[in-house]
Amino acid sequence: MTQPTHYPSWETLKTHHEDMRDFSLREELARADRFATMSRESCGILFDFSKHLATEETLTHLLALAKEAKVEEMRTKMFAGVKINNTEDRAVLHTACRAPETAEVIVDGENIMPFVHQVLAQMEDFSHAVRSGEHKGYTDEAITDVVNIGIGGSDLGPRFVVEALQEDGSGPKVHFVSNVDGQDIVSVLKKLKPETTLFVIASKTFTTEETMLNAQMAKDWLLKSATTDAIPKHFVALSTNAEGVKNFGISLSNMFPFRDWVGGRYSLWSAIGLSISLAVGFDNFKKLLDGAHEMDQHFQNAEPKDNVPLLMGMLGVWYRNFYNYSSHLLLAYDVRMDKMAKFIQQMDMESNGKAVDRDGHHMSYATGPLIFGEPGTDSQHSFMQWVHQSADVVPVDFVIAKEAHHTLTPNHASLCANFLAQSRALALGQTLEEANGDPSRVFSGNRPSTSIILPKLSPYHLGALIAAYEHKVFVQGVVWGLNSFDQPGVELGKKLAKPIREILEGRAPNAGMDSSTSHLIDVLMPR
Amino acid sequence: MTQPTHYPSWETLKTHHEDMRDFSLREELARADRFATMSRESCGILFDFSKHLATEETLTHLLALAKEAKVEEMRTKMFAGVKINNTEDRAVLHTACRAPETAEVIVDGENIMPFVHQVLAQMEDFSHAVRSGEHKGYTDEAITDVVNIGIGGSDLGPRFVVEALQEDGSGPKVHFVSNVDGQDIVSVLKKLKPETTLFVIASKTFTTEETMLNAQMAKDWLLKSATTDAIPKHFVALSTNAEGVKNFGISLSNMFPFRDWVGGRYSLWSAIGLSISLAVGFDNFKKLLDGAHEMDQHFQNAEPKDNVPLLMGMLGVWYRNFYNYSSHLLLAYDVRMDKMAKFIQQMDMESNGKAVDRDGHHMSYATGPLIFGEPGTDSQHSFMQWVHQSADVVPVDFVIAKEAHHTLTPNHASLCANFLAQSRALALGQTLEEANGDPSRVFSGNRPSTSIILPKLSPYHLGALIAAYEHKVFVQGVVWGLNSFDQPGVELGKKLAKPIREILEGRAPNAGMDSSTSHLIDVLMPR
Repeated sequence: MTQPTHYPSWETLKTHHEDMRDFSLREELARADRFATMSRESCGILFDFSKHLATEETLTHLLALAKEAKVEEMRTKMFAGVKINNTEDRAVLHTACRAPETAEVIVDGENIMPFVHQVLAQMEDFSHAVRSGEHKGYTDEAITDVVNIGIGGSDLGPRFVVEALQEDGSGPKVHFVSNVDGQDIVSVLKKLKPETTLFVIASKTFTTEETMLNAQMAKDWLLKSATTDAIPKHFVALSTNAEGVKNFGISLSNMFPFRDWVGGRYSLWSAIGLSISLAVGFDNFKKLLDGAHEMDQHFQNAEPKDNVPLLMGMLGVWYRNFYNYSSHLLLAYDVRMDKMAKFIQQMDMESNGKAVDRDGHHMSYATGPLIFGEPGTDSQHSFMQWVHQSADVVPVDFVIAKEAHHTLTPNHASLCANFLAQSRALALGQTLEEANGDPSRVFSGNRPSTSIILPKLSPYHLGALIAAYEHKVFVQGVVWGLNSFDQPGVELGKKLAKPIREILEGRAPNAGMDSSTSHLIDVLMPR
Repeated sequence: MTQPTHYPSWETLKTHHEDMRDFSLREELARADRFATMSRESCGILFDFSKHLATEETLTHLLALAKEAKVEEMRTKMFAGVKINNTEDRAVLHTACRAPETAEVIVDGENIMPFVHQVLAQMEDFSHAVRSGEHKGYTDEAITDVVNIGIGGSDLGPRFVVEALQEDGSGPKVHFVSNVDGQDIVSVLKKLKPETTLFVIASKTFTTEETMLNAQMAKDWLLKSATTDAIPKHFVALSTNAEGVKNFGISLSNMFPFRDWVGGRYSLWSAIGLSISLAVGFDNFKKLLDGAHEMDQHFQNAEPKDNVPLLMGMLGVWYRNFYNYSSHLLLAYDVRMDKMAKFIQQMDMESNGKAVDRDGHHMSYATGPLIFGEPGTDSQHSFMQWVHQSADVVPVDFVIAKEAHHTLTPNHASLCANFLAQSRALALGQTLEEANGDPSRVFSGNRPSTSIILPKLSPYHLGALIAAYEHKVFVQGVVWGLNSFDQPGVELGKKLAKPIREILEGRAPNAGMDSSTSHLIDVLMPR
């Protein structure tokens, strides 16, 4: 495989980066046509790239790099079910979860689309049964609360979407338990009654330590007041491991399957989305899938120069590898999108935070950035000081929905004004003269951002937005030549935790550890 | 003022950094006495620095830098009430809020300690009245819910502490509203009844746009079912602006004052802590102050080589300026400390994310790092892949409480094991041999972290921990020669938002804006 630094366009971009030394956003944005040439639209969502350290020429060079890196070929392979997750020998087909029944996607000789739609039908039936009260608990009462027990990909996606679509939430209240810290499940269970609670156990392997410990606690809790006959009424499983599900005591008719071609952090579109469907109804869940599918179509068919995920991805490469900016900030101006940064943080950093390329060679160039974020305007009273004035420049994505779900007009006007003011302040800065000669109030400006405007925070637009980020991450992974779909770091942690837990539980002596760990074990050892 | 890069010890540290090129944590941690020489204790909290890229010699050089930068002199000035916030000409005395009544701290010729303790007495009385049901709403019912309306420093501190001390929460349920997004207050109010709700309006200036808009919405909501006579029973103010409080309709007997020598992000110890006192009781609030005061004593009196905040601060300088690590990660292995990273992120980044030094000169060296974090073990299934394998190294603070408040023993053992395994994995890495020859599973190791163990998450220990971070940030600000106590970036945002809001509300034409902002205004303009 060719390293990206060896493509001809990489050299062109290096030269172009030199030429951009005097580029001034203040000057560029003074040109009336800047917005028209640098903004794009997809699925009804506006993506304004005009506040970037880029010209049309920059985009041309970046798209040449994408072409040389074979982004298009890899994209075709992904959608077609080729096993591009090479270290795990798996296809990458979260996109199939949102494709229409008429599509054909072949994995190991089988068209998987009938399976996808069979699971969707199972989800639809079950969501309807729970939401209508037809599905009853062991005392014949309807379900009022759902507890999603999962971690990482089996938690963050549904957690983000359920909160984002809270105004569509018409079903049972959905709670999320992820952490192995016992406080997590204890705090949730103390608010609930077993007879009206449904547990959704979400674990691809059905062996995840955190999830299985919490699922066991949930079962113990139910069985304090019910007999084992109650389990099928109060537990369902989202998993690929039928054997594990059965052994836990969940009947296979209550198992919602998915396959190994759905990676955890890309799984909210699969059976893992059941909690979303329970919270907002299957029709809304379907609209979420439709929005994502529409973005899939856009990503596959739009011209490179208009292709939003491609441009997002390549602008990220531009900053990461040529400007050496090491982080990326996500600011959703919407409290319902409180978990967006957390969700994208996982999707991006777990995918592209890698040390070796697809061929197992150590990479000598920077790859995935650090992703962080909090909702605006809160962040303006927190870390935005740093974003405006720190020596480190961080590109920002500003996200907002034009239409609010509430009627507090002055609040919404203030929210929109602040959304616009921050990107403007970052781009233009403040000169010494504008700061009335006070050097502590001088801002360099020239700090780049994308403004993203959704017509409203609907399931459709949210689905499209999430899919855009998925494909952005994909594009960058391809350019960097790495496998975005494994996670060896997660496995290393599990491997090292096992012997330590054995010592802490008195099943092994405190031996063979390093000086620090050995002493810390002594401190944490229960007496 | 001397720039830090001009101190003799800066050169020494540069040379020492070169000498450390072959430093191997794997080798260092194999020495049995590494833990004993590199761990410290304060206020009953263990701080293990043995997994750092540092030897005792490193600490000696770093402490020499602290001495040359006059950290001790500045510390003395801060505690004594000298106006070290030079751009705003203010003293910096959050430490006085937790000092005993017998202390004497003079500001502008006045001993402020009687004022501090008078406000504490007012907080004690009011907390008792609300919690006992003696303070009644307009229908003569007791208060069941408190809504803290504030943003930034008037929100994050109380929000973090109330959640962290949830097991001590015996009073009314405290909710937090911060964002100007109307959804924030709408979501909270729909769960509450006006007759049993108390609003705590927290704004230093009582002019903060977000807070005043939300306070107005809260007042409108109350007045839908009550007359203006009800306001004194349902609204209190935490502010320095008596005039503004009175104009809003809150009686001055319901105002809890503080002074301009308490900065927003350091204000949870002042009247801003009222929501904490309401949630957990004044006695617990007092223990929080006691813990912080104990850490103040430690910071002032401990020998440099044993001084925890000093060492934390200087290790941060070591990584930021010599290793060029640009971020810092906070991982609390406790779901109750979910907001810790968010809180410290504000405290640190708003304080030290600055462009000019105390003399108004542009700084040519790196200053405050990017701070981020999420609770462990959740983060292990999210961005830890990146932390283990990315080309960017990020120093980590791991935080845990030895004693859990719940009784789920296997969960707690797993939590502790994972806490220990992650720092061990970061320090030691995994060789190609240990990875069975799979290059994608090779981890470089040598990634530094501090392990912090609290005996339990008590108010006292939490207070001490927060104060340690405050002083860490202070130490770094002094070494970098900047003012950690102003926030010009926040003010720039406010200044630019005003004219945009006027356009969005139809009070001014869409003119004078840059190409991007002008078009985005058109998109967001209500029709």
